[in-house]
Amino acid sequence: MYSFKELQDIVQKEIDGLEFSTPPEGLFEPMKYILGIGGKRLRPILVLLSANLFKEDLKKIYLPAIGIEVFHNFTLLHDDVMDNAPIRRSKATVHEKWNSNVAILSGDAMSIKAYQYIVSCEDRHLRDVLTVFNQTALEVCEGQQFDMEFEDRGDVQIDEYLEMIRLKTAVLLGGSLKMGAVMGDADAKDADLLYHFGVNLGMAFQLQDDYLDVFGDEEVFGKKIGGDILCNKKTFLLIKAFELAKGDDKKELEEWISAKDFNAEEKITAVRSIYEKLKVKDQSQAKIDEYFSLCLEYLDKVNVPAEKKKELYTLVKKLVNRSV
Amino acid sequence: MYSFKELQDIVQKEIDGLEFSTPPEGLFEPMKYILGIGGKRLRPILVLLSANLFKEDLKKIYLPAIGIEVFHNFTLLHDDVMDNAPIRRSKATVHEKWNSNVAILSGDAMSIKAYQYIVSCEDRHLRDVLTVFNQTALEVCEGQQFDMEFEDRGDVQIDEYLEMIRLKTAVLLGGSLKMGAVMGDADAKDADLLYHFGVNLGMAFQLQDDYLDVFGDEEVFGKKIGGDILCNKKTFLLIKAFELAKGDDKKELEEWISAKDFNAEEKITAVRSIYEKLKVKDQSQAKIDEYFSLCLEYLDKVNVPAEKKKELYTLVKKLVNRSV
Repeated sequence: MYSFKELQDIVQKEIDGLEFSTPPEGLFEPMKYILGIGGKRLRPILVLLSANLFKEDLKKIYLPAIGIEVFHNFTLLHDDVMDNAPIRRSKATVHEKWNSNVAILSGDAMSIKAYQYIVSCEDRHLRDVLTVFNQTALEVCEGQQFDMEFEDRGDVQIDEYLEMIRLKTAVLLGGSLKMGAVMGDADAKDADLLYHFGVNLGMAFQLQDDYLDVFGDEEVFGKKIGGDILCNKKTFLLIKAFELAKGDDKKELEEWISAKDFNAEEKITAVRSIYEKLKVKDQSQAKIDEYFSLCLEYLDKVNVPAEKKKELYTLVKKLVNRSV
Repeated sequence: MYSFKELQDIVQKEIDGLEFSTPPEGLFEPMKYILGIGGKRLRPILVLLSANLFKEDLKKIYLPAIGIEVFHNFTLLHDDVMDNAPIRRSKATVHEKWNSNVAILSGDAMSIKAYQYIVSCEDRHLRDVLTVFNQTALEVCEGQQFDMEFEDRGDVQIDEYLEMIRLKTAVLLGGSLKMGAVMGDADAKDADLLYHFGVNLGMAFQLQDDYLDVFGDEEVFGKKIGGDILCNKKTFLLIKAFELAKGDDKKELEEWISAKDFNAEEKITAVRSIYEKLKVKDQSQAKIDEYFSLCLEYLDKVNVPAEKKKELYTLVKKLVNRSV
């Protein structure tokens, strides 16, 4: 059994060893750059942890696992263009460092590279791996589309928001775990359980991320608190607040949302207080707990000795900031 | 044996029957739109004509063939964003009709759809089809990257130009034919011959397209003549002209290239005259003939009765405007 840390090192070594040296450099340099600026490498590690439940030797799965990370980074690259985001993980985004055309085209090439790595799996897994991956990849695009559409809508409902984060974030965690299970020769039932484990983990993780953006500790969270509030991002918290707010609370919330001129700290503090007053904070925690419990239920049911699942339980706990 | 026309109808019917009705509409409408504005459907027809050399029943190959057309249209969609092109086949481009973000994201989703269709091939062909497709798709991106880089360079050489059009245009024709051969259960040798047939056909076709943009008949060519000259596009003709021009010819050419204020018709006529004077026109024709002969040599060698290849010979003749 591999630990999370061991797999993280393996994944990093594999990424560092990828060959992007063919011309044209202008196409491959941005790939190297975005893959080089780090991240937790969560998705390929999930592929490998999942496969490791069923088999010991993971070498043939390294490259397909890296393919998922390459795909994930491709989506970040294009999302940053679409969101016009200047910074990713404290570094200039690709379209800032180069330009939009470079970001579009090297992203396209990156998605094909992702496929090349993913189809390096063994022949007997190829069909199943592709079926999961294609569906997941398409859903990620659907999620991004909903996310963009929500920016221009004032009537987004909680269920729509949950469906959006399921597509944009959660299914790729589920898909990674399922592809790992397939490549580990798990049976279909366990592969599906791991998929649902991952999707629910992804939901809990994203809701927790939204929560920490408002109520987190900057030191621990690793990025500035309040960003979602400042840009009126329609997260669970804001949608729920609008659902519950009445009278003066509603008026105050609406004023902050439509304010053009404001002090950032003041807005963050004010909106956070409204969230607390309306118990949106508690409801968010309750929702996270709900997905967290569900995800554990699925993991419990996976038909391997509990001891093999230890690393996954630890990971879940860390990701969702809960004790198992 | 199917005729080109029959296959064109089949391809069109299949494209019309594609289901793009799942939400979000904003993601799938642009796909329907760009697939709907037509084109010759050359690539899927090449897949099917190639397979048809080796087998009669093509039904299982329809969808993978459509996948190649979807991929091709995805590249057009993103190229149009990168080139900031307002019009494609007399219609507004996707980023004009919607916006850049829509074009980027629906293009991304389209490339995944392309994979979904392509991998619908039979299991025994899956690995080979994917190997050809992945390599080809990546090369198409490399070609686009070179094309964009050439815009900012004054020293592009003929060989570099030929390599760029090989990657950007020719390999996808070769790849289509090879994938068709694989799905038709051709042996590896015939599949490779068809690949090289297609690549050389693609070279001849692109050079002919460049030629017609300068010397063609607007009625027959179907688009305005002289566009490449007006935007100083570094085609075979212009690069060759700079290679050969001396003294006053060189000075005149340079003046037209750097001119900011000019009468369009005057520039077209002047540059065309220089091309004729420098015999660039003849050299272009000679180069087209060279690729045309090579492509026929490869097709000749494909190990099926000559009569089965009739449709392909007719197609080549039509595409390159030569008699076989």
